[in-house]
Amino acid sequence: MAFWNRRQWLKSISMTTAVLSTGGCKLSAKEEEITPATTLTDPDKIIRLSSNENKFAPSPKIKQAMIDAIDKSYLYTPSHYKELIGKIAAKEEVGTDNVLLVSGSNEGLRLTGLVYGRNGGEVVTSTPTYKALLSYAEEFGGTINAAPLDQDLKYDLDEMEKRVTSETSMVFFCNPNNPTGTLVDGQRALDFCNTVSEKTMVFSDEAYCDYIEEQDYPSMVPLVMQGKNIIVSKTFSKVYGMAGVRVGYLIASPEIVNRLKPRVMSYINMMGLAGACAGLDDKEFYNYSLQKNREAKEKIYQVANDLGMSYVKSHANFVFVKTGMHIAKLNERMNAEGVKIGRPFEPLTDWCRVSTGTASDMAAWEKAMHRVFA
Amino acid sequence: MAFWNRRQWLKSISMTTAVLSTGGCKLSAKEEEITPATTLTDPDKIIRLSSNENKFAPSPKIKQAMIDAIDKSYLYTPSHYKELIGKIAAKEEVGTDNVLLVSGSNEGLRLTGLVYGRNGGEVVTSTPTYKALLSYAEEFGGTINAAPLDQDLKYDLDEMEKRVTSETSMVFFCNPNNPTGTLVDGQRALDFCNTVSEKTMVFSDEAYCDYIEEQDYPSMVPLVMQGKNIIVSKTFSKVYGMAGVRVGYLIASPEIVNRLKPRVMSYINMMGLAGACAGLDDKEFYNYSLQKNREAKEKIYQVANDLGMSYVKSHANFVFVKTGMHIAKLNERMNAEGVKIGRPFEPLTDWCRVSTGTASDMAAWEKAMHRVFA
Repeated sequence: MAFWNRRQWLKSISMTTAVLSTGGCKLSAKEEEITPATTLTDPDKIIRLSSNENKFAPSPKIKQAMIDAIDKSYLYTPSHYKELIGKIAAKEEVGTDNVLLVSGSNEGLRLTGLVYGRNGGEVVTSTPTYKALLSYAEEFGGTINAAPLDQDLKYDLDEMEKRVTSETSMVFFCNPNNPTGTLVDGQRALDFCNTVSEKTMVFSDEAYCDYIEEQDYPSMVPLVMQGKNIIVSKTFSKVYGMAGVRVGYLIASPEIVNRLKPRVMSYINMMGLAGACAGLDDKEFYNYSLQKNREAKEKIYQVANDLGMSYVKSHANFVFVKTGMHIAKLNERMNAEGVKIGRPFEPLTDWCRVSTGTASDMAAWEKAMHRVFA
Repeated sequence: MAFWNRRQWLKSISMTTAVLSTGGCKLSAKEEEITPATTLTDPDKIIRLSSNENKFAPSPKIKQAMIDAIDKSYLYTPSHYKELIGKIAAKEEVGTDNVLLVSGSNEGLRLTGLVYGRNGGEVVTSTPTYKALLSYAEEFGGTINAAPLDQDLKYDLDEMEKRVTSETSMVFFCNPNNPTGTLVDGQRALDFCNTVSEKTMVFSDEAYCDYIEEQDYPSMVPLVMQGKNIIVSKTFSKVYGMAGVRVGYLIASPEIVNRLKPRVMSYINMMGLAGACAGLDDKEFYNYSLQKNREAKEKIYQVANDLGMSYVKSHANFVFVKTGMHIAKLNERMNAEGVKIGRPFEPLTDWCRVSTGTASDMAAWEKAMHRVFA
């Protein structure tokens, strides 16, 4: 992989919207108030900017819907799937037989990794990317053929297209990509999915699609409805703020839904079904989440600028920042400051992924970063 | 399989506690009040005696714990597993590294079916029994070698032992058995698991263990701790009343837990973690559930006696009744009466499995049964 040096970076930002500056600031006495390292064993006390969660959730409406559902939580849930499937189908403009509910999109990713990757199936992708599908495929004998991201840290679709052969079982395409937050050109994404789906199954992981900062950016869902060989994955864990509730879904042809359905391992819980239905109706919270996410990203950009660090403009709820410090060391240092940031993403080990949070979270992160990089 | 005729049955009940009588009663005008068939598409309106749920849940304490957990439901949950794992380990008298949390024991069953049954793995069991592990194994190329239940509708451990060879990947042992509610002799169960686990992995599905009506009946958990090749499965869906919350667990050696853990597809939801912790502390609700279950079973026995139907004494939260009517026809007739009973369990197609419910549920079932068998 071509790592960026500063000159390449400066050149690249004229084409992207990445921002670069230098700066720094002095610590104040207030920093002493940051949660000390000794509390780190309590998962409720550390400031988590590590898992791309929505710190503004739960929305009051989603919360109330979940509370109301508890009285039915003694029942098995499959007979209650209908309402949520109907709402998702209406939102996505697909049939109800195109929707497969899963307990968080991670289950959909693993399920698909198992079905397409097991016993030597080859999955073509770019790296670093989100690994749930890939790791699960590998657990069952699948092989991963991963092209490096391009020099803008975007999926290298040209290189991936070259790697797709008659041996390929599936292409995994995470867009916007986790951990970089990058988005490929919309028309190129459509062309790629159209072309490659003629040869193999394409999995389009659109977990972060709500955060895309380009107008009219295409989903791959319409390609599914055109009969293309594509599975799209979406989640309630991000903009809807339901990571700990476990609801996601796949959109695919009825044939593929029927192939995957008996291989799902778990059921959606009763509160999740109700909460997801409420979430789809709660436009106010959706817009609020997006606005707060934009504000937090601006703060991350500002801090990176202040510290003279490169970063990539993000189409997600996190920002990938080139700190120059090895992520293992940085994780340790930040943990000691009471702030948990993203895990290592090989081979970009001197970058760190920081999730968006509340203004208070971002202030704590800013203080911790200044302390570590003082 | 040796089906029972009335003479065999009468002989068998002298050894078991099964009860048989004849009788009947006339319908009253009140029966017209039973929910009519037109409401059957609304899953909230039909009286569900079909899925062995706990109609007395949620307990107030479990409910409150779940409500309180909603504020944290925007977080991914693995960093919150520790408390529940600790409580389960303490209850089961095992190490925390012997516990694998799963989203309902069904996920544990499927997961194990996949790992041990895929690609031609042979699973030895008795039939009819609970199929989640077996069906999932078959989805991935496993084969099932199922001995018929014995004439008391108990697992035929002698026959299963004969069928275990060097080709066997796993033995599946559901005890008490679903759908029959039967329990094998405790010492025989221990001897069987001890012997067979020398040759292959034994999966002991103890979903209904809380309902066992024999004093000091052994769990197979201590055998796990003696280093035997055994996985035990338990659930919060039954006596704890959390079927729609999705929490279960496996108890196995740390090596097996570590082998299975990366193959789990989903995560426990935040409300489930909190509710299960509260459930383990809520002895009052646990005992109340058991008492109400006993009362409902007595009612089922009485109705079967009144109608002159055979049944098997149940060690679970359902009773298997020999109605003499094909279950497909009976399901249709009972649905029309607004009562949903258990699905077909081949080859015992003139039996029906009826779950316990509230006094009102059982009264509705009684009326419907008298109407159908008038």
